[in-house]
Amino acid sequence: MICNFGAGPCILPQEVFKQASQAVLNFNDTGLSILEISHRAPEFEAVVDETIKLVKELLNVPEGYSVLLLQGGASTQFSMVPMNLLAEGQSAAYLDSGAWASKALKEAKLFGEVKVVASSKESNYTFIPKDYEIPADAAYFHYTSNNTIFGTELFETPKTSVPVVCDMSSDIFSREINVSDFGIIYAGAQKNMGPAGVTLVIIKDELLGKSGRKLPSMLDYKIHADNKSLYNTPPVFSIYVSMLNLQWLKSKGGVAAIEQENIAKAAALYEEIDRNPLFKSPCAVEDRSRMNICFVMENKELEKPFLKLAEERGMVGIKGHRSVGGFRASIYNALPITAIHSLIDVMQEFAETVK
Amino acid sequence: MICNFGAGPCILPQEVFKQASQAVLNFNDTGLSILEISHRAPEFEAVVDETIKLVKELLNVPEGYSVLLLQGGASTQFSMVPMNLLAEGQSAAYLDSGAWASKALKEAKLFGEVKVVASSKESNYTFIPKDYEIPADAAYFHYTSNNTIFGTELFETPKTSVPVVCDMSSDIFSREINVSDFGIIYAGAQKNMGPAGVTLVIIKDELLGKSGRKLPSMLDYKIHADNKSLYNTPPVFSIYVSMLNLQWLKSKGGVAAIEQENIAKAAALYEEIDRNPLFKSPCAVEDRSRMNICFVMENKELEKPFLKLAEERGMVGIKGHRSVGGFRASIYNALPITAIHSLIDVMQEFAETVK
Repeated sequence: MICNFGAGPCILPQEVFKQASQAVLNFNDTGLSILEISHRAPEFEAVVDETIKLVKELLNVPEGYSVLLLQGGASTQFSMVPMNLLAEGQSAAYLDSGAWASKALKEAKLFGEVKVVASSKESNYTFIPKDYEIPADAAYFHYTSNNTIFGTELFETPKTSVPVVCDMSSDIFSREINVSDFGIIYAGAQKNMGPAGVTLVIIKDELLGKSGRKLPSMLDYKIHADNKSLYNTPPVFSIYVSMLNLQWLKSKGGVAAIEQENIAKAAALYEEIDRNPLFKSPCAVEDRSRMNICFVMENKELEKPFLKLAEERGMVGIKGHRSVGGFRASIYNALPITAIHSLIDVMQEFAETVK
Repeated sequence: MICNFGAGPCILPQEVFKQASQAVLNFNDTGLSILEISHRAPEFEAVVDETIKLVKELLNVPEGYSVLLLQGGASTQFSMVPMNLLAEGQSAAYLDSGAWASKALKEAKLFGEVKVVASSKESNYTFIPKDYEIPADAAYFHYTSNNTIFGTELFETPKTSVPVVCDMSSDIFSREINVSDFGIIYAGAQKNMGPAGVTLVIIKDELLGKSGRKLPSMLDYKIHADNKSLYNTPPVFSIYVSMLNLQWLKSKGGVAAIEQENIAKAAALYEEIDRNPLFKSPCAVEDRSRMNICFVMENKELEKPFLKLAEERGMVGIKGHRSVGGFRASIYNALPITAIHSLIDVMQEFAETVK
């Protein structure tokens, strides 16, 4: 039995794989593959509509927001956000809580002044900075809700009078959020939304066309909003599989229900990390991520043999990122709790062998 | 029997659909779906390597060029090209031969002066302009090799001393080209390369970092070249299916062999259009595309009933683009000549009924 703890692209539900596999042969009984269907075909426009409808429903997106399905990943959003929101001469506020937050603010510097309100870089991003001030004259405040690499998560949206922009790539659809707290939410799909190749943007309509810059069409949120994400050929299959995955999430009871499962999954694994004398978490307890659980060993020399045993037992993708070392179990929505139990079993089995 | 004449996303070989469908369930006997595999996994890095190798092999890409697999489609290239090649104060030369050429030059205007060397817009793009001069001081010359919407194709690369940039979205891999004639070739994959969601760029290395502009990382060819197209999470599945499709093309004898088939397919259909008194081609004979064959009816009132009959006979995607009207048969590499024969049969059957 394989347990896929990969950080992304990551596990999706088996039924989604089955439906997607079938649609590659015959999409919706059209006799055509989903890969050869026109993006202007009514059958595919229905897929886009349904995907956007599911995003709105699952996240309770209020009136006055547009849901966009784009390309280029969060990395493209790192520059689209300042291009679209930051007028000449303005500044933007960024919270530096991890590698992706740091990349985002670096890209923003091309378009204006960046004020870093706080950073945990000095301590290798083991915690989320608190007690900082967000300048009231910033064009927007940007943060990353979950730090995939370092295993920390910011559960409470920072309070500010300026529009809040959030990179939710690795925790969107894993827990309830209040969309009206945000100006822009963006996320590469390849964690809890779908496969790689599509990027979700939820933007408050009043922010469309805000910067006054003349932008390339593909980098202008307004163009995509006006064209209902069909300005050019979209990533058809990635959108289709996202739709299937969001349908699965809805059938599971939606975000509120999956959040309870995610809390239980994370609690079980952290409990073992805290209990098992061989392992420890490098992250501040109050900032521990529910999606990406980093852990290291007290004795570094045991990491290789533990990894070997875990891989023998079917654990995939648990080697930690080089920035942290040790291990990282990414436990996204589709990962069943039985996989967590299997990992805990391996941790306990390994502890027995080194007694 | 369905015959998919769609303009793109379009037909791919049935064996590619079968392999892709299987990989969604179990990729390379890993026990994992291609949709859940890490883009940093050696098995997927091998897919990227193989795809790039096949592009180089099939197009005889010489030393000194980089092959990039990006996102955002040709529409994103419309702005990436000037961003990366056009230094402040420089001008670029564009041939306006169709709707996409026109969009490309519009985007370039954001970054500098655009000199339109010639345009066939006045005659609704029914021919490819000839006998124009390309300014020797242009930073580059841009053209579209095949006009998907208007059904014209430019077979001979224009001669100039400046770098030639070509949008080959709809005819790349359909005929032999001399890559060393070009500074940049780009193409949305969704015709002869693979499914939607990945964009091919072939760039002469000496053009990397040419404009001196400070670019967002995701819009800088050099970043992608330095990172072997894995700067961020790539569109995994679209790349994988492109690899399968290029393997299929290689097994068919490569571009030279498919070009002969494409010549035969196009000749058969144009012959019927010219022969059958009900139909005519709106395009200049010498500029007729081998990929997208536009045809209209002498009597417009017969177009609806002909479309109805064709659809009844299993023809998909032959309604013409609204800019041209009538019909368009896109006859990409994977469309078998039997589909052309079926379409010809319908044209003849219809002619019989209106005698």
